[in-house]
Amino acid sequence: MQEWCVENPERIKVDVDASQCAHQIKLEEFLRPSSERPSALLILNQKIDIPQIFTKLWKNYRLRVCADGGANQLYDFFKEDERERTEYMPDYIVGDLDSLRDDVYAYYESHGVIILRQRTQNSTDFSKCLDAISLHWHSPEFINLVNNSAEVNHSVDTYDGLEKLRHLMASQNLVRINLLALGGINGRFDQTVHSISQLYKLASDDSQFKLCYLSSTDLIFLVPDHGTLIQYTQGFRKDCIGNCGILPMGGPTVIEESRGLKWDVGNWYTSIQDGKVSSSNRFVGEDRCYLKTKDSVVMNVEILVDNLKYFL
Amino acid sequence: MQEWCVENPERIKVDVDASQCAHQIKLEEFLRPSSERPSALLILNQKIDIPQIFTKLWKNYRLRVCADGGANQLYDFFKEDERERTEYMPDYIVGDLDSLRDDVYAYYESHGVIILRQRTQNSTDFSKCLDAISLHWHSPEFINLVNNSAEVNHSVDTYDGLEKLRHLMASQNLVRINLLALGGINGRFDQTVHSISQLYKLASDDSQFKLCYLSSTDLIFLVPDHGTLIQYTQGFRKDCIGNCGILPMGGPTVIEESRGLKWDVGNWYTSIQDGKVSSSNRFVGEDRCYLKTKDSVVMNVEILVDNLKYFL
Repeated sequence: MQEWCVENPERIKVDVDASQCAHQIKLEEFLRPSSERPSALLILNQKIDIPQIFTKLWKNYRLRVCADGGANQLYDFFKEDERERTEYMPDYIVGDLDSLRDDVYAYYESHGVIILRQRTQNSTDFSKCLDAISLHWHSPEFINLVNNSAEVNHSVDTYDGLEKLRHLMASQNLVRINLLALGGINGRFDQTVHSISQLYKLASDDSQFKLCYLSSTDLIFLVPDHGTLIQYTQGFRKDCIGNCGILPMGGPTVIEESRGLKWDVGNWYTSIQDGKVSSSNRFVGEDRCYLKTKDSVVMNVEILVDNLKYFL
Repeated sequence: MQEWCVENPERIKVDVDASQCAHQIKLEEFLRPSSERPSALLILNQKIDIPQIFTKLWKNYRLRVCADGGANQLYDFFKEDERERTEYMPDYIVGDLDSLRDDVYAYYESHGVIILRQRTQNSTDFSKCLDAISLHWHSPEFINLVNNSAEVNHSVDTYDGLEKLRHLMASQNLVRINLLALGGINGRFDQTVHSISQLYKLASDDSQFKLCYLSSTDLIFLVPDHGTLIQYTQGFRKDCIGNCGILPMGGPTVIEESRGLKWDVGNWYTSIQDGKVSSSNRFVGEDRCYLKTKDSVVMNVEILVDNLKYFL
C-alpha cells in the first residue's frame, strides 16, 4: 500500500474507541498516577532540573526511590532549605553505592531511610531499583523484613540479594506499577540511549512496569505495536503539551496509521538511518490520538513545565 | 562465530595500522581542525552550554554559521559584555528566520553579517545551513555574489535559492569539510533524534561533510561500517576524555571487532530494543582504537569540558 501523509487542522475529532485498541496510554497518568494503584518515582543520578514541579510531583507518587547517587541529587536539591529537606525522605536508596556521598549516606540513614547496597556489577543501579520497587509492591514479607531487621543491609544479601528475593516472589497477576524516572535523559549520551533501551526491555521482559522518563523538556515512553490509544484531557493538551515525535529507536519500522496528529501518516516507513522520522509533530485530536506501528516505537511529548505546576 | 567480550587493562597497545583501515577518525580534529582545510562551526538554536571553551572553540574554525535562532543564542551568550560580542560575528545566519529575534537580526545586519532567508519548509534550517557552508567552501562565485550584492537577501532567492545554487555547483572532488555542530543534542528529544539521523543521512548522501556534535558532555559522531581507526593523542585521552558508548541508533547490528576499549567485543550483537548496548565503556588503547561494525553506528565520547579549555 502507498504511504500517505496529511496535514490536519489544529483541532479534529478522532473516532477511535478505547475498546478497539490493544493498548491505552493516559498521558496525565504518567505525572499524576491513580492514588489507588502502585506507583513509584525513581530519581537517577542527574541534577534535578524541574525545580518548578519537583515537590508537587513527589507528592503524587506512593513510593520514592533513589538510585545510588540519585540521593545526592535529592539532598542537593534542598541545599537552601534544610528544614524542607526533612519532608522529602525517599523510601529506599538502592545501588552499588559507589556514587553515594558519605554525608548523604549518613544523613538519610540517620533519618531512617532504608539503604540497600547491591554490589553485583551484572546489573545496573536502575535494575536494582526495579527489584526493590517490585518487591515493595508485591511482597509484604519484603517490607516486613527490611523494616524490622537490625542486621547489616536490612538482612538483604549485599551482593545480589534483591534479585534473588525477587525471583522467589510469585510473578503471576502482578498489578502494574506506574513508574516515572527522573534523570535518565540528557546526561551522557550513552546513558540516554541506555535509558531508552530500558523502555523496550521492560516492555518485553518485565511488563509489570509502565515506565516513563521525564526530562526538563519531555515525557518519553514506549508506544507498543498493534495499536495504542493515547488519551489526554483537552486542558492538558492546550496548556501543558508542545510538540511530539515518533521515534523508531529500535530500528526501521512502519507507522501503519496515525489519527490525531498535525501530520498524520499511513503505511509510512520510518528510519533514523534514512533520516525519515516524524519529529516536530503535535497532537491535534481533541482528547485522543491513535497510533498503530509495525514495531514498538518511542514517543516523546514536549512538556511545558512552567504550566505543569498549575496542573499537578 | 561465537560472540566474545574481554575486559582489558587500563592501557594497552593496539597494533592496527591506519593503512589497513577503510576509515580514520582523529578525535582532536573534531575540536581543533586543521587550519589548512575547510571547517565550519554551526550554532543551532539551543543555549550555549559550554561557556568554558566556547570562544576558544570559535577561533579554531574558519567559518561560523548560525542556524536561525542560533544567532539569538550567540547574541545572548555575550549578554554581559557587549564589547566582546562585536568580536564574535558569524559569517552567515541562515534559515526560515521564524526564530530569529528582531533585535538580534538588526544587530547582526548592522554589523555586516550575511543573513540569508530561505522560506521553504521542505528542508530544515540545519540543511539550509549545510547548503550555505558547501557553497561558501566550494563556490567562489557564491562568495562574490553574497558579498557584493545590494539586492534583497543578497540576490539569493528567498524561497530555496541556496539549494538551487548548490545544485548548479559541480559536485565532484569536493574537499571534505570538518563540521562541528553545537546545540543539536539535549534539547527536545525528537530534535536530538533528528540530529542523530543527520549523522547517518550526511554519511550516505553528502559525504563532503564530516559532522560531529558537541554537547556539554559528549562528542557524538558516526563510525562507518567496514572498519574505522579512531586516533587520539595520549594526553587528550588522559585529560579530556571519559566514558564512551557504541550506539546502534540505526537499528540492530553486530560489532564484528573492537580493539582498544576497556571492554572489547567481537561478533557481538547489539540492539537498543534488546537492551544490549555497549555503554559506559572507555578507550584503553594508548593512542588508538579500532572498531569494525556490520553497519554504521553512532559513537559518543564523554568530554571533560573543564580540562578541554587547556587543550584548545
